[in-house]
Amino acid sequence: MNIKAIAFDADDTLWDNEPFFLDVEKEMWKILSPYGTAEEISSQLFETEMANMDDYGYGAMAFTLSLVENAVKVSRGQVPATDIARIIELGRTLLRLKALPLDGVVETLSQLKANERYQLAVFTKGELLTQEHKLQRSGLMPYFDNIVIVSDKTEQQYTDLCRTLNVAPSELMTVGNSLKSDVLPALNIGAWAVHIPYHVMWQHEVIDDFDHRRMFRIEKFSKLIDLLKISNKQH
Amino acid sequence: MNIKAIAFDADDTLWDNEPFFLDVEKEMWKILSPYGTAEEISSQLFETEMANMDDYGYGAMAFTLSLVENAVKVSRGQVPATDIARIIELGRTLLRLKALPLDGVVETLSQLKANERYQLAVFTKGELLTQEHKLQRSGLMPYFDNIVIVSDKTEQQYTDLCRTLNVAPSELMTVGNSLKSDVLPALNIGAWAVHIPYHVMWQHEVIDDFDHRRMFRIEKFSKLIDLLKISNKQH
Repeated sequence: MNIKAIAFDADDTLWDNEPFFLDVEKEMWKILSPYGTAEEISSQLFETEMANMDDYGYGAMAFTLSLVENAVKVSRGQVPATDIARIIELGRTLLRLKALPLDGVVETLSQLKANERYQLAVFTKGELLTQEHKLQRSGLMPYFDNIVIVSDKTEQQYTDLCRTLNVAPSELMTVGNSLKSDVLPALNIGAWAVHIPYHVMWQHEVIDDFDHRRMFRIEKFSKLIDLLKISNKQH
Repeated sequence: MNIKAIAFDADDTLWDNEPFFLDVEKEMWKILSPYGTAEEISSQLFETEMANMDDYGYGAMAFTLSLVENAVKVSRGQVPATDIARIIELGRTLLRLKALPLDGVVETLSQLKANERYQLAVFTKGELLTQEHKLQRSGLMPYFDNIVIVSDKTEQQYTDLCRTLNVAPSELMTVGNSLKSDVLPALNIGAWAVHIPYHVMWQHEVIDDFDHRRMFRIEKFSKLIDLLKISNKQH
């Protein structure tokens, strides 16, 4: 193992994200309670989001547009405009998340930065401005040599990332909570991956668990230091 | 003048964009006609867009969210949900624009590409996926060595662009319709700029006209070839 660059996922890896989306979804249950059950609203919302994926992609503005569309749909055109305004404002809270670094993130990035052995990058999918804002608010910018925001994390995007970072796939290690987005495509192009499970996961990101020679799993962010030390000794 | 890279603006430079936004705005006049005049609706919309700029940035999803918010505001909460659904669908048309290349664009890019003297880039601000989709649909991707999509075109972003393209500011030429976004910040960092006026301009992009030693103005895209030839002879 000869890692030269580490690419960190952002949402639910460096800071909390999904729980805030779930909070908004729960508010929707209240707003739309005259028209359907929580289960109906959420299942219809997921359907709306999936139907909008090609047009909107991933992110808080995409989510807000789907929330509005879904409110009209679930209420069969009965939801009052004042509730639509509330939904827009709920969506706005997701654009203003503090992006407080998760436990161990600052200390770990700080050690990795001081170590100077690895090029450190953020590699996140979503909306450009939304992700930029969270990064700025997180205070984590100084730790990263590269910030790469993409509309989706496909194998092609991981290949492009290697070119941007000027490393071979076998010299790249990704770190993230999503097997589907952060781990699998990275492994598929020949990179290494560290999976840090997060306590909630958006349905769209869920895939079956698996093992892989180039994948490690750690229960918390700070274990990355041990992992890299141990691995360096082993190889 | 020793230009090594040319960075092209996309919307209203490579393809039509603003007229489609204006078409949607006109549809809003009809939908909201019970609540206000065209002038009132448009002026309130611009205010809403400006208030949302920090959160949403530039783009069709941003515009759609502002349209919805503004419809509730202008109607004082009276607009029916079915009209909100119509607005969402109007916004969607802007995400699906064909991005048909403007007159002379294909021929000119083709000549520049064949010439092999210049690194060719798209440098556009807006939403990541929205801009990617337009580029794909335009069929212009093969002409460009780099695609750079940013949330705003500030001097800092032009400086970063030079780093990405590996050229000095004095070796960069920008081409675009907006004095504010495509020309002024480029000139300010020491680059060259070609202004191609477009027949309509979003109020937010309008600034006073000016002259500059490193700025050229051409009335149509294909004149770029003459300009570069003439300039190359002169210097």
